[in-house]
Formats: sequence, structure tokens, C-alpha cells
Amino acid sequence: MIGRLVVVGLGLIGGSFAKGLRESGLCQEVVGVDLNPQSRRLAVELGVVDRCEEDLAAACQGADVIQLAVPILAMEKMLGLLAGLDLGQAILTDVGSAKGNVVRAAGEAFGAMPARFVPGHPIAGSEQSGVEASNARLFRRHKVILTPLEGTDADAVATVDALWRALGADVEQMDVGRHDEVLAATSHLPHLLAFGLVDSLAKRNENLEIFRYAAGGFRDFTRIAGSDPVMWHDIFLANRDAVLRALDTFRSDLDVLRDAVDAGDGHQLLDVFKRAQSAREYFGRILARRARKDTMNVNDDQKEAQS
Amino acid sequence: MIGRLVVVGLGLIGGSFAKGLRESGLCQEVVGVDLNPQSRRLAVELGVVDRCEEDLAAACQGADVIQLAVPILAMEKMLGLLAGLDLGQAILTDVGSAKGNVVRAAGEAFGAMPARFVPGHPIAGSEQSGVEASNARLFRRHKVILTPLEGTDADAVATVDALWRALGADVEQMDVGRHDEVLAATSHLPHLLAFGLVDSLAKRNENLEIFRYAAGGFRDFTRIAGSDPVMWHDIFLANRDAVLRALDTFRSDLDVLRDAVDAGDGHQLLDVFKRAQSAREYFGRILARRARKDTMNVNDDQKEAQS
Repeated sequence: MIGRLVVVGLGLIGGSFAKGLRESGLCQEVVGVDLNPQSRRLAVELGVVDRCEEDLAAACQGADVIQLAVPILAMEKMLGLLAGLDLGQAILTDVGSAKGNVVRAAGEAFGAMPARFVPGHPIAGSEQSGVEASNARLFRRHKVILTPLEGTDADAVATVDALWRALGADVEQMDVGRHDEVLAATSHLPHLLAFGLVDSLAKRNENLEIFRYAAGGFRDFTRIAGSDPVMWHDIFLANRDAVLRALDTFRSDLDVLRDAVDAGDGHQLLDVFKRAQSAREYFGRILARRARKDTMNVNDDQKEAQS
Repeated sequence: MIGRLVVVGLGLIGGSFAKGLRESGLCQEVVGVDLNPQSRRLAVELGVVDRCEEDLAAACQGADVIQLAVPILAMEKMLGLLAGLDLGQAILTDVGSAKGNVVRAAGEAFGAMPARFVPGHPIAGSEQSGVEASNARLFRRHKVILTPLEGTDADAVATVDALWRALGADVEQMDVGRHDEVLAATSHLPHLLAFGLVDSLAKRNENLEIFRYAAGGFRDFTRIAGSDPVMWHDIFLANRDAVLRALDTFRSDLDVLRDAVDAGDGHQLLDVFKRAQSAREYFGRILARRARKDTMNVNDDQKEAQS
């Protein structure tokens, strides 16, 4: 049980975190902060928070936990503002999609990384956005990765861990660098390739007629190129080094594959495709298992609701 | 109305072509040819064809149209065998995913490209395969691209066009080179990238634990890496030159994107991502429109069935 939770940034992620914890009954009070007056009004109307503040200092007074859910490039400025406040024993945490840059910014803002700052990243999202899309179940069965440093307070980690678990998330801990590398490889690089391929085709085919000949496989492949350009622009700038490393590794593997096509080396192509197919099937089974558990949970909820 | 249709190769595509035309009543007889005795038996049992032959020469006797639906790397050998037969006035056509190599092989086998050979490519498929997956509606509202040459007989083109339209396909004509370029860009290159990325990740993460952190967007992106490795091996060898050109164009665009990430050039990243998002939405609308027409057709069929 904690007293006051403050959520800074009432978008989809911040709003869903606030709403879920408010419904959990784990917090005595959930306070929202957002620069946008309409988001503040909606957050109260929709029951996402108990109350809202426009002013960060006013909101953080007496806070036990402060969740930073602002866009990742706004994190630096926000940490600078927080460093000027008396936060008492408040635990700080965040939801940024890259962690190295947040840890660096916190170190600079506070002079050293605060022991009660627990960096975090929920691997969840939705095609919707904004506080009106807040969903108390958004994080259910989704991974949340916490990346505490050596000096991070163990109680603070345990508290943040407990909050995410209360929302149904699978919480894991990971080294900051490893987190950024894993996300660069499994999320940021695929987005860069999809954005890049679609733009590469579009700019060479002025009337876009080439897309008329693309089939369903292309739709799957490029679906993520429909994601929010501004959010992704932020992520690539925030996780620049890890993205470049992942991209360069991929490019050198792609060069080898290119040489195999060029040389007509069927054996090597077949080896690569078979390994990829097996790995893809393994990944498909992971997702299918998660989806089954989701369905079971939904059934349990329905039973609860009926009883 | 044509007399005898011969379909060589009773896989998903050949079987679906045969079954659809048999049901259309447009052909007096549909004859199947396949090396596999079980495929021949099933094709007759499932009503895919009227009868089957093991021997190509026996099957092609008295044929009006011969559809080559063998794997693309088997096309060369098949054309060599056909060149040794007396085909009379039979029209030849094929379903290969690349057209330049088929045209080249036909020219070599026959001494010159036969005037009554109409190269074709249905852009359709399914996760299932084999004659037992034959589906008379597989080509409905799917594009079929015919790539006749200058010397191709106009009547032969009209006949092949009419057969595909009878199956509900949208038939278009395209230059051989343009076909191979369009398919390399919208299908072959995305497959190469997806196979390449999944294998690149898998071989650097021995226990595949990295896939546990991948979310749904990665699933979409890599779904096509679950495709048949042997078929794709064939396609990359068959369409080698166009694939290499598409890949090299993409690689140079990707290099520019890499430099923008490296330089922290947010404006350029945002421009690329926004253009890609618009093009992706345009493509999404094309597919949605096709899907709506499909639904309307299904409703019409249901009405027909009820009346």
C-alpha cells in the first residue's frame, strides 16, 4: 500500500498506469500532471486519476512514487525540473523505450543517479493514443523491464515491481545496456527497416502504383511503418548508439546474404531460410502461449463478473 | 470454351487453377500431370481434375492449353521436355513468380520464344500447400500478371486472360522486366529482409531468449520469414538480377537513414517516417477496398445459394 502516486504525462501509457493502479486500490491517491488542460479534464472525468495538477511542484508534494510517462525526448527537461524540487523519500520511475539516455540524463540533472530512481520500460502499446485510450488492462501479460543500477535502492525496486505486477505485468530486470540492445534489435531496427522500405518504394514510384501489386505478406511486413512518426523519431534519437550497432550487425549479415544470392549459392540461402523459419516458428509459439493465457484470464474475469 | 486443359504440377496453385476451371464448365476436360502418385490420386478423388497422367507426352496429346505450375527451378527442365513433343496449336502458359528466367529458358528450349507461350504470374498463395489445399476461389480478386512479348500471339493471350478472369482474377499485362522489378521490390526483398533479420537475431542468441522480449509488431514484421524455405530459395535464384537491384537500391537508402540516425538529424528522420506512414496508409486503403469487395462477393454468393 502506498500513499500518493503521481503520474507525469497523461498519454496512453501514463493514463493506463494511473487508471489500473487507481482501480487496484493499492494507492490512497493518484494524481495526474499534464501540460494539456483537456487531458487533465478528461483524466478526472474518465476516472483515470483522483485529481490533476498543472504544476509539477504542486503535484509532487508528498508524493510516494512519481511515474514519468512523458515522451522520451522530454525526459531530460522533466528530470531537470524534478532535480530542483524537494522530493523527500519519493521513488522515481519512468516508462521510456530506451534506458541509457534516461539514466544519463538523470545523472546529469541530479549530479549523480538518484538511488531511488528505478528506470523501467513496459513493452506494450496500442494503435490508439491519448488519455481517452487509457486502459487499466493494457499491461496484462506484457513484459515490463526494470533496469536498476548497482546503487539503486532495493526497496524502491521492490515497490515499482509490485506496482507493475498489480497491473498483471510480467516484470523482469535487465542491465541498462542489454535492455537497449534487445529493444534495438527486436523493435527499433524492424521499425527502421519497415519505414525505410516503404519510403524507398514510395519515393521511386510517384503515383504509388507499385503498391497495387503488393500482396498480404507485404502488408504484414510494413504494418509497423504506419506507427506514429514523431514517437519513433524520438526513439531513434534516444537509443541512437544501440540502434546503430544493431543496424550495422544486420547490414553485414545482409551483405553475406546478398553475396549468396549473387553467387547463386543455393545451399547457403536454404540454410539461412530454414534457420529463420525455425526461429520464427519458435517465436510464434511464444506469442500463441501468451494469447492462450490471455484468453484464460478473460474467461476467469467473466466468471468473476458473473458470480 | 476450350477443349482440353492440361495442368502440369498439382500443387496449391496448379490444383486451384484446375479445380476452378473444372467447376467453371469452360473446359471440356481438365487433365492433371504430376510425378507424385498420391497427388494424382488425390486430384481425381477431390474433383480437382477429370483424370491424371503420369507421362507428360500422354497428357499433352490433344491439349488446347497447357498450364505449367511446377516449382520455378523445375521450369527449365519441363520446357526442355515440352520442346521435344508435338504440341500442335496448344497454348502454353505458366505461373512462375519470376518471368525473365522462364522466358529465357523457353527461348533456349524451343530455339526461340514460342508465339503461343503466354508467361503469367498469379499473385496469390496460402499458408497451406499441396493438391489437398486446392481452392477454386484462391485467385478471386487477386492480381494475375501476364507478360506477353512482342511476338506473342494475341489470341493466345486472350484465351489465357479469359481463363484467369473466369476464376475471378484481376488480369493485367506488364513488361517482363517491369514484372520482375515490381515483384522483387514488393515481395522478394521484404522476404529477404525478414528471413535475414530473424536469422541474424537467432544466430547471435543461442537459446533464442531475445524473442521473449519482442512484441506484436515484430510478429507482423517477421511473419513472412515463416514461409517455405525451399520455394523462396528457388525464387531468389530465379529472380536474382532484379532482387539484387532492389536490394542495392534499398541498401543505399538505408545508408542515408543510418547517417541521419548517426548525425541525430531529426528533421530527416521525421520526413522519411511521415512519407512512409502516408504511403503505408494508402496501401492499407487499397487492401481494405479489396477486402470489402470480397465480402460483397461472398454475400452475393450466399444470396445465389439461397435463391
